Amino acid sequence: MTAPIDFYFDFSSPYGYLAAEQIEALAAKHGREVAWRPILLGAIFPQTGGQPLLNIPLKGDYARRDLARSARLLDLPFHLPPTFPFMSVAACRAYYWLEGQDAGEAVALAKALYREAFGAGRNIDSAEAVLKVAADAGLETDALAAALKDPEVKERLRDEVGQAISKGVFGSPLFVVDGEPFWGHDRLDQVDLWLQRQGW
Amino acid sequence: MTAPIDFYFDFSSPYGYLAAEQIEALAAKHGREVAWRPILLGAIFPQTGGQPLLNIPLKGDYARRDLARSARLLDLPFHLPPTFPFMSVAACRAYYWLEGQDAGEAVALAKALYREAFGAGRNIDSAEAVLKVAADAGLETDALAAALKDPEVKERLRDEVGQAISKGVFGSPLFVVDGEPFWGHDRLDQVDLWLQRQGW
Repeated sequence: MTAPIDFYFDFSSPYGYLAAEQIEALAAKHGREVAWRPILLGAIFPQTGGQPLLNIPLKGDYARRDLARSARLLDLPFHLPPTFPFMSVAACRAYYWLEGQDAGEAVALAKALYREAFGAGRNIDSAEAVLKVAADAGLETDALAAALKDPEVKERLRDEVGQAISKGVFGSPLFVVDGEPFWGHDRLDQVDLWLQRQGW
Repeated sequence: MTAPIDFYFDFSSPYGYLAAEQIEALAAKHGREVAWRPILLGAIFPQTGGQPLLNIPLKGDYARRDLARSARLLDLPFHLPPTFPFMSVAACRAYYWLEGQDAGEAVALAKALYREAFGAGRNIDSAEAVLKVAADAGLETDALAAALKDPEVKERLRDEVGQAISKGVFGSPLFVVDGEPFWGHDRLDQVDLWLQRQGW
């Protein structure tokens, strides 16, 4: 029996979107499952001095080009939403609440949210936008709408982010394979090799 | 006739070392040459808010692990020098002066300096250390020692760094292939594909 691949990501991370489109096929190739773990980089950046990537002089211009180029290479649609970077709190809460109801639906919602944000280039930063994506994905939204305001759900998200930080998670996407961390969409090739060789 | 691949790097960049060990074989595979362009990230970071990678909380710990892992995967020795991060001004001046004398020797010196710093894990931050590496590489060092103090050589380095910044260079390693920039050792696979497909 093998452990799932932990997949840490922020819904506002465009490289996380690219990774989300690839990680399940990669895991399945090695007989693994994926534990989707949305986090809030905004809660982690104060510790690392991190900044939203696309706002950084020079590096931000490069990243826009690199993202578009990497998406073309993967044959994925890519657009930034009008509000960017954005707060992904509602998306995270929706994910963790739904995970408690139906883990498969939670992953389906995560993918739909990412595609809405970076495939279609539409905002997902409000509860309303998240609920619309959920409804479009065929999910029942009354209980979800209530969950977004539930103090227990808010607490759950804080716990998840705190746990991620305590495990050294500092970026998105970040994968942990049998205890070994790999940061960045461009490390998926090493994730693949690590799974194949069981380390090196 | 095709243009060389521009290879921008800081001698104090460990990912630059990994790239330096791979870029020539990659270029040769596609019938290209490499234009080695050492830069000083210390002159660029004030514009980008960049920090020496290994000093950053969480991210620094990860980078140490990632560097060691990536070096093992490439079967390259990897050690950080005692002084790290370090000033690579002397190494850069040596490179650019020598390039004017014999471009092949300059590239040989660049590789020898990188191997001294990150293969053997020894300091290359002083003129003395750079001259010792040059001597060990069989180079004549009297003229080189004089060049390291030559105002024209100092000016040349400032020009090179200024030109790199004006072209949007913000990190190390950074490759430019036919006008297309690729940042990071982990983008060498895209450099390879770009050369093969002439873009996508």
